[in-house]
Amino acid sequence: MARIVQKFGGTSVADVGRIKSVALRVKSEVGLGNQVAVVVSAMAGATNQLVDWTRDTSRLHDAREYDVVVASGEQVTAGLLSLALQDLGIDARSWLGWQIPIRTDGVHGKARIETIDVTEICRRLAEGQVAVVAGFQGVGPRGRITTLGRGGSDTSAVALAAALEADRCDIFTDVDGVYTADPRIVAKARKLGRITYEEMLEMASQGAKVLQTRSVAMAMNHRMRVQVLSSFIDAPGTLVVDEDEIVEKQVVSGIAYSRDEAKITVQKVADRPGVAAAIFGPLADHAINVDMIVQSASEDGHTADLTFTVARADLDRAVAVLENGKKAIGFTVLKPDPNVVKVSVIGVGMRSHAGVAKQMFQALADKGINIQVISTSEIKVSVLIASEYTELALRTLHTAYGLDAPG
Amino acid sequence: MARIVQKFGGTSVADVGRIKSVALRVKSEVGLGNQVAVVVSAMAGATNQLVDWTRDTSRLHDAREYDVVVASGEQVTAGLLSLALQDLGIDARSWLGWQIPIRTDGVHGKARIETIDVTEICRRLAEGQVAVVAGFQGVGPRGRITTLGRGGSDTSAVALAAALEADRCDIFTDVDGVYTADPRIVAKARKLGRITYEEMLEMASQGAKVLQTRSVAMAMNHRMRVQVLSSFIDAPGTLVVDEDEIVEKQVVSGIAYSRDEAKITVQKVADRPGVAAAIFGPLADHAINVDMIVQSASEDGHTADLTFTVARADLDRAVAVLENGKKAIGFTVLKPDPNVVKVSVIGVGMRSHAGVAKQMFQALADKGINIQVISTSEIKVSVLIASEYTELALRTLHTAYGLDAPG
Repeated sequence: MARIVQKFGGTSVADVGRIKSVALRVKSEVGLGNQVAVVVSAMAGATNQLVDWTRDTSRLHDAREYDVVVASGEQVTAGLLSLALQDLGIDARSWLGWQIPIRTDGVHGKARIETIDVTEICRRLAEGQVAVVAGFQGVGPRGRITTLGRGGSDTSAVALAAALEADRCDIFTDVDGVYTADPRIVAKARKLGRITYEEMLEMASQGAKVLQTRSVAMAMNHRMRVQVLSSFIDAPGTLVVDEDEIVEKQVVSGIAYSRDEAKITVQKVADRPGVAAAIFGPLADHAINVDMIVQSASEDGHTADLTFTVARADLDRAVAVLENGKKAIGFTVLKPDPNVVKVSVIGVGMRSHAGVAKQMFQALADKGINIQVISTSEIKVSVLIASEYTELALRTLHTAYGLDAPG
Repeated sequence: MARIVQKFGGTSVADVGRIKSVALRVKSEVGLGNQVAVVVSAMAGATNQLVDWTRDTSRLHDAREYDVVVASGEQVTAGLLSLALQDLGIDARSWLGWQIPIRTDGVHGKARIETIDVTEICRRLAEGQVAVVAGFQGVGPRGRITTLGRGGSDTSAVALAAALEADRCDIFTDVDGVYTADPRIVAKARKLGRITYEEMLEMASQGAKVLQTRSVAMAMNHRMRVQVLSSFIDAPGTLVVDEDEIVEKQVVSGIAYSRDEAKITVQKVADRPGVAAAIFGPLADHAINVDMIVQSASEDGHTADLTFTVARADLDRAVAVLENGKKAIGFTVLKPDPNVVKVSVIGVGMRSHAGVAKQMFQALADKGINIQVISTSEIKVSVLIASEYTELALRTLHTAYGLDAPG
């Protein structure tokens, strides 16, 4: 007998028909003799509708009231799935954040889970009852409903699995696993049987939208085995596990890309101490995150060019902040460029293999793709390229690292 | 300074635009220097959608899960109205049933309110904060969400008003008050400035759908002044008050009708002791309420005919129950008739005026309308007539009792 947490996202519970399908999935897990807790998202579209209503109602944002409205979506799904399970003869009950309780801090709209009291749920799991838990929500220090921010149901699921000391946390979604690359672009992409937490974390933060970064980090901290699998296809997915559970390590496990980047080049900045602080300080003050940075000497020898990336959604704000500080920074020209994409090759095998970066640069150069910025970590190499080369770059690298599916 | 509870029904909060209008209404009450608590229903249509989902999900009914799903509707409105009020510069916060808490018994789907802890709300009202309370819901003895049944938001409002010792409970709805008769049928109907609790109770239970019977009974018990008024027109409505607050009493205050009735005649029942029990016992066992009853001797002198009414929705079930018990009861023919309507004249003045019933029977006879069954109470006379005479009967009685608007 195992204890399993299952999480079903919005598309998996989009309507009553799909909720009934989910109930069958849960039933078959119960049928294996396992204890099952289920975490559910809101029905697809419901959260957007609720968010739209709050925006249409008020220009101001009282995040506490926003949370009251938005958390209702998961409440509905939790009740409906409990009914669907009961209809199949499975003992089940719904749990809202405040009922368990899932205690969070008081940062409404993006709260962090502090504790989950699983005493009563454990007792009922042992009696064979399925716990259906509303994802994405908790209760704050002052007894008000909090939400964990977008994608928070993944985090709810992993946190609950950790608190329950579950054997596995299954994340059911609309893809059937983690691929070596986005299969919509790279036709020869393969589904990975296993991937390490570190790789998954890089994949998620480098643009692969299968799992929320936060939930992966939490799984890694608790060494919770997470499986990503499809709620529509009955097949094993990708298991996210500790590195020592993977026998045969690939040098490169996957290739990710992100279109959410934009590049800013600040030309002819005085090449003096403190100039980087003059640029990045004001951006940080405006909560604009800077990702890749490269500094190069200008042709004149007395100044430098600084190139860096920000989220595309922040580009206009970033430019305005820098133009405001033009005098203090002392630059001549500011060049924003939203037409860039970040491509990353990821693999824990890099730790013990040299030459991964070189191979990447060579493969791209062979296709005439210019690299604008480079950044690396222990298990990742990322490059910024013109967005028109996205597909070519991904397919080229996929082949270059021997990731293509046979046939 | 007064303390006012305002309640807004589903059509008053049907969309974001209307919720903003409600916020303006609340603001003007606050502007008068009053303390204001607001009770809201779900947005029109929301509850039906939620109920449909529960029905589509499960043939079984776990009322606890039904309550989890359905209570989310009022949660959304409470959050949105709080945001709309804040947008107008009014300090406001939402309260869900479990947060106050509004404690109920454990009868899910039609729970009864037991206690409301208003300590914290009172403190905040005194500080000028508006309390926006989700209607229709509470929390049961085991910490689960309960709902009060259809129309329960009226009950929430009156119960909250009583607990807060409010000066008045304003029920905003899509009609602008209580009329002497349904103005859609009786063009000369007049809006009543005041009506007694007893009359309102009879009006509600005799078919006038302005207020829920339960909320009127609760208002009467607590002597809470209730005003029924329109959320769309800025005009005083009808005040439901104690009898001694009405100086000039009408003999008849209003005429109500109900199409939700059906008649059953059981012919040639053996005229012996215990036969009524043989008929009405099985109906009660099947939770079928019987309203009006008349027994008359048959032509042969040895048997009796029994005629009574049940809710139209129960007619088929009632007939089946009686046919099953045909042998035990011993009747010859069972005649069901759904084409009937119950018309009632209501007024506390009847207590001191004789002849009200006689006037009714005469007026109907003058128009050739046959009375099938009669029932009376201290302040009401009801008759059952063929439904095709509904309009004629209502207009005739309205004129006969001098209720017609001048002009």
